[in-house]
Amino acid sequence: MQEITSPSFFIGKDNPDLISFGSGQPDLPPPDEAFDILPTYRDFKYGLVQGMLKLRETLASQYSGANAESFVVTNGASEALDLSLRALASPKAKVMLPRPYYYSYPFNVRFAGMESVFYDLEKGKINFENLKNNLEGVKIILINSPSNPTGTIQDIETLKKIEKIAKEKNIYIISDEVYKDLIYERENYLIQGENVLTINSFSKTYAMCGFRIGYVYARRKEIIKKIIELKTHTSMNTNILGQEMALAAMRVPTIFLEDQRLIWRKRRDLIYDGLKSLGLDLWNPEGAFYVFPKIKNPQKVMHDLYYKYKLIVYNGAWFGAPERIRLSYALSEEKIKEGLKRIKKYLEKEDFKN
Amino acid sequence: MQEITSPSFFIGKDNPDLISFGSGQPDLPPPDEAFDILPTYRDFKYGLVQGMLKLRETLASQYSGANAESFVVTNGASEALDLSLRALASPKAKVMLPRPYYYSYPFNVRFAGMESVFYDLEKGKINFENLKNNLEGVKIILINSPSNPTGTIQDIETLKKIEKIAKEKNIYIISDEVYKDLIYERENYLIQGENVLTINSFSKTYAMCGFRIGYVYARRKEIIKKIIELKTHTSMNTNILGQEMALAAMRVPTIFLEDQRLIWRKRRDLIYDGLKSLGLDLWNPEGAFYVFPKIKNPQKVMHDLYYKYKLIVYNGAWFGAPERIRLSYALSEEKIKEGLKRIKKYLEKEDFKN
Repeated sequence: MQEITSPSFFIGKDNPDLISFGSGQPDLPPPDEAFDILPTYRDFKYGLVQGMLKLRETLASQYSGANAESFVVTNGASEALDLSLRALASPKAKVMLPRPYYYSYPFNVRFAGMESVFYDLEKGKINFENLKNNLEGVKIILINSPSNPTGTIQDIETLKKIEKIAKEKNIYIISDEVYKDLIYERENYLIQGENVLTINSFSKTYAMCGFRIGYVYARRKEIIKKIIELKTHTSMNTNILGQEMALAAMRVPTIFLEDQRLIWRKRRDLIYDGLKSLGLDLWNPEGAFYVFPKIKNPQKVMHDLYYKYKLIVYNGAWFGAPERIRLSYALSEEKIKEGLKRIKKYLEKEDFKN
Repeated sequence: MQEITSPSFFIGKDNPDLISFGSGQPDLPPPDEAFDILPTYRDFKYGLVQGMLKLRETLASQYSGANAESFVVTNGASEALDLSLRALASPKAKVMLPRPYYYSYPFNVRFAGMESVFYDLEKGKINFENLKNNLEGVKIILINSPSNPTGTIQDIETLKKIEKIAKEKNIYIISDEVYKDLIYERENYLIQGENVLTINSFSKTYAMCGFRIGYVYARRKEIIKKIIELKTHTSMNTNILGQEMALAAMRVPTIFLEDQRLIWRKRRDLIYDGLKSLGLDLWNPEGAFYVFPKIKNPQKVMHDLYYKYKLIVYNGAWFGAPERIRLSYALSEEKIKEGLKRIKKYLEKEDFKN
């Protein structure tokens, strides 16, 4: 039995008996529109490092007051975040991250030569006073609403207060909004401001994870210029065909996204009610596709579930929450039900409350 | 008239009258095999961060003694280089670059938080004694044979001496061999050793520039592990469809590559003889697709040719050779001939020898 120390342990573990609440990857395919362009596709030359103009124009039309020049198309949100941090980096500068956080954030900060500090979420929510009192020396605040792993969205009032204080103190905001189209409660609130970099991707909204198309939208010209300079030397244009597929996917009627949201909501209800009825302590997610219950000894739970029940969950410690486990519900209702059965069987034998 | 300060000035400048000896981009399309897979393609999920196993296995079969575990598939050679440097980086470490160098190298070194030092090529060739005497404090030597921008290949004896001294002094070698299949004189010599990272791509051999599929092959497990860790957080898997296309391209019969090489050789002869007959001082390239003539006032020449003769050449200063211009001959014979005519017209009026 091998010790499980990171999500990458589970990569390629895909035997048919296994139920995976692990990776945050939609099981529903991208819209047909994305594939429809393939049979006649023949381009092969370098594209613009900044990204295909037509795609950037279409993206800009989704952001009030934006224009194509303010976007850079990247290899997924991951590269958007990496380049944004590198563009803003100065030695030893502090980047303030939410805790719990998306698994990669502390790595990204370190790889950009900066230092992570944290604002602790309370049941997934920002305590503004707490955040405000810890801004000493902070150059960048990272916001992730809706959040992976908590599934929470932040109150619009709180986000506006953060916009204001960041402006006053001349702090950058990097807003990771990759789950913006997956909110069950309200429309997404786009964080605004001259000092804001918005990160997004086609991986969640259009289920295009494998194609790695993301983008960063920054209002300041000099930031875009710096990001392009970095990308010119570190990866050049994003895959030209992936960009065409992303553009084609955006042609899908909005009903597609609404239908997707209904499916996600149904799954959310299923897993939330299921885990709740098993006695687990968790909140009802408002966005994204993760539940984040409290549990005693998450590392043991993860091991037991994987090795004895063929079920993947992630240890909350990987996300800065050592008393929880994360379950993605990006899989069919049938599988969610089967997964819940296995968890029930396991929990009946264990003292899992902490 | 806008001052031209970098290759990116020319991006998107593609009116039909313009002859471009600028960008190093094959005009010949990739093999049909790469496109043949498109009509039925339907995958969309995350792939392995390290790269598709089948692709890595096929790559490994091209490198004696290698196996799939020693490769990481990247967003072009650019990301391979960026990740390799970041994986090996330590603060203030020195990276030794050839001069003239590929435009991006000094940027890549700086972006990885290290410092560039140089070994000067003599008519495109390494002077080993010179290199050897300047290794104090050097952590990484970068080799680029065949070279962009010089078009030269390095003597196998010299490369073996560098392998040896790098091993003795515990220095890493990053060998950028993206033009390995474009040598007119002999087979490519693969630089060997436990401390070697080999970088390559599908952009030149298979004309797949826009799809951004490259790779790094490193013999030391811990280097591969570190590169995968970086890529997990900074871009995740390389575009899954691009990888499938790259694998399909490799199925092309070797005659395809031989035919390509004959075409390149013909073009090389055409441009070399043409420029020589105009009185320019240049050497005959042995690989890649660049000529690198000496010329007086390259910045003025570049400006004049672009603004008055609708012809793109690059200032050698961008490559560390302020007394030269670079011409890519990755375009049709017809266009090369037309380009040579325009250069002839221009040079007839100018004192261009220095």
